[in-house]
Amino acid sequence: MPKLVIVGTVALDNIRTPFGEVKNALGGSAFYAGLSASYWTEVGLVAVVGRDYPPDGFSVLNRHGVDVRGIEKSAELTFSWSGEYTYDLNTAHTLKTDLNCLLSFNPDIRKSYQDIDTLFLANIDPDIQGRILDDLEKAPSLVVLDTMNYWIETKKNSLLKVLKRIGILTINEGEARMLSGQFSLVQSARVIQDMGPETVIIKRGEYGSLVFEGKSIFASPAYPLEDVRDPTGAGDSFAGGFIGYLTRHEDRSNDRLRQSIVIGSAMASFCVSDFSSRGIENLKPPDVSRRLQEFSDLTSYRSLAPILRSDGSQ
Amino acid sequence: MPKLVIVGTVALDNIRTPFGEVKNALGGSAFYAGLSASYWTEVGLVAVVGRDYPPDGFSVLNRHGVDVRGIEKSAELTFSWSGEYTYDLNTAHTLKTDLNCLLSFNPDIRKSYQDIDTLFLANIDPDIQGRILDDLEKAPSLVVLDTMNYWIETKKNSLLKVLKRIGILTINEGEARMLSGQFSLVQSARVIQDMGPETVIIKRGEYGSLVFEGKSIFASPAYPLEDVRDPTGAGDSFAGGFIGYLTRHEDRSNDRLRQSIVIGSAMASFCVSDFSSRGIENLKPPDVSRRLQEFSDLTSYRSLAPILRSDGSQ
Repeated sequence: MPKLVIVGTVALDNIRTPFGEVKNALGGSAFYAGLSASYWTEVGLVAVVGRDYPPDGFSVLNRHGVDVRGIEKSAELTFSWSGEYTYDLNTAHTLKTDLNCLLSFNPDIRKSYQDIDTLFLANIDPDIQGRILDDLEKAPSLVVLDTMNYWIETKKNSLLKVLKRIGILTINEGEARMLSGQFSLVQSARVIQDMGPETVIIKRGEYGSLVFEGKSIFASPAYPLEDVRDPTGAGDSFAGGFIGYLTRHEDRSNDRLRQSIVIGSAMASFCVSDFSSRGIENLKPPDVSRRLQEFSDLTSYRSLAPILRSDGSQ
Repeated sequence: MPKLVIVGTVALDNIRTPFGEVKNALGGSAFYAGLSASYWTEVGLVAVVGRDYPPDGFSVLNRHGVDVRGIEKSAELTFSWSGEYTYDLNTAHTLKTDLNCLLSFNPDIRKSYQDIDTLFLANIDPDIQGRILDDLEKAPSLVVLDTMNYWIETKKNSLLKVLKRIGILTINEGEARMLSGQFSLVQSARVIQDMGPETVIIKRGEYGSLVFEGKSIFASPAYPLEDVRDPTGAGDSFAGGFIGYLTRHEDRSNDRLRQSIVIGSAMASFCVSDFSSRGIENLKPPDVSRRLQEFSDLTSYRSLAPILRSDGSQ
């Protein structure tokens, strides 16, 4: 039985970046998050795919030990996202969104999973996110939720309702400002914490993330790569990594949260190094250890006992 | 005799941000960098002011022990910058630049200073930066240089010449890409290191900085403040802080460089918390110690011995 269940999308993406192009490539929030989490804990997906979904998608998930019993097969086509990135790899330009089988996606999570330790509600309609929480007989010990500007604009009340019921929200910086009505990210996080989640993780793309829990703030950079080829899935790989690591460990200390964010950042850095999910497939323990060591080298410094020029007199 | 000499501008700024407005406010690259550095080492300025420069500017510098012998007084008006920030506090919108006395600024550094340990050439014409280096009989042990897009566009050859003669370049991320012709900041830094400076510090505004020295990369966040009131001078306060700290300490180790970047980031965070130079005036040692502790809390995490779900088998 998977300890972590991820509800989100499995997609076929058409992506163009300055470094290449892929068509009908494996993607989707649950797909990226599931693969990334699979390195850290037992994970199951709740999603829907269409009749055109290639067997290869399931092979990749199976190879990583991801439980796919919760993936429905629809008679429609698979959800498809077509997007383009220019040299500003922080911003995806959506060319086309074909919802297809996602239009009627209304999963019954109880069919596949009952006793869920951690639930990740990736970016979908907040009404569905709320209904899934209603359906569970036993509340998960941790619920993490992701959302986007579209839901803040069109379903804010539903979103506010579901925010009261979760432990961690992941949101990008523009969306945090939009949701809170605050410009300062510190104030945005405080306002959002008052809406429900104790922990707010603000994603800043190539600049990393800011993590607010209680009064604590943790800043984690994104790993600066020689080459970023395709940013698609970075946020979901980040989420899958940190949630997978949190799920694996029982304690919910702030120390553990910080470690999980570093894990998530490392997984995101693997993700963007190649197109589609190639960067997070078949990683070996030494690859991960090396990247974590690089992360530590990137951010650590010897603690300072500052001596001002004229201590005490200025 | 000051150990650190800063060549740059002293200005009167007109600044509007969403949080207020100031007119004829004390500013300029050398002014900000000098004040910030004054907390860490003996510092002297080389700059020019006009006949309208208020005595208050000199009082502030004197109060912080900044040597002002190298500030010429011109019969023209003081250099003046008028700018505006919208809620995107990362981007200054220049409304007006009155060069005034800066037009004929051509300082003879030997008149005021001979034996310079560290020289900071703040953002001015690279031909003047080069001539100042020519003028010095004894090369400083460290030369730090700042520049901007305008010089990259209009005087690239002069800039490339002076880059061969410095140890540290500070540059913002867009300018690093422009100067190197590379999109990846890692590759940008490598290309710029090949142009001369062993150390390249890429400034990313509210996202902090990336520091490249040899093969080492250090990422430092900007301190996330509840309220940023005026970003003017942040980059120069950052530079003054890290250069002042480096000047104070003899060793040029990578450890020391990392510490200096944290000091610079702390000074920048004080700077942006208020208009003009108010945020970096009259700081007390406990203020600085507290911010440095907050910085450490912001970035530190317990080191990880990562255990993947199925170590060795995946």
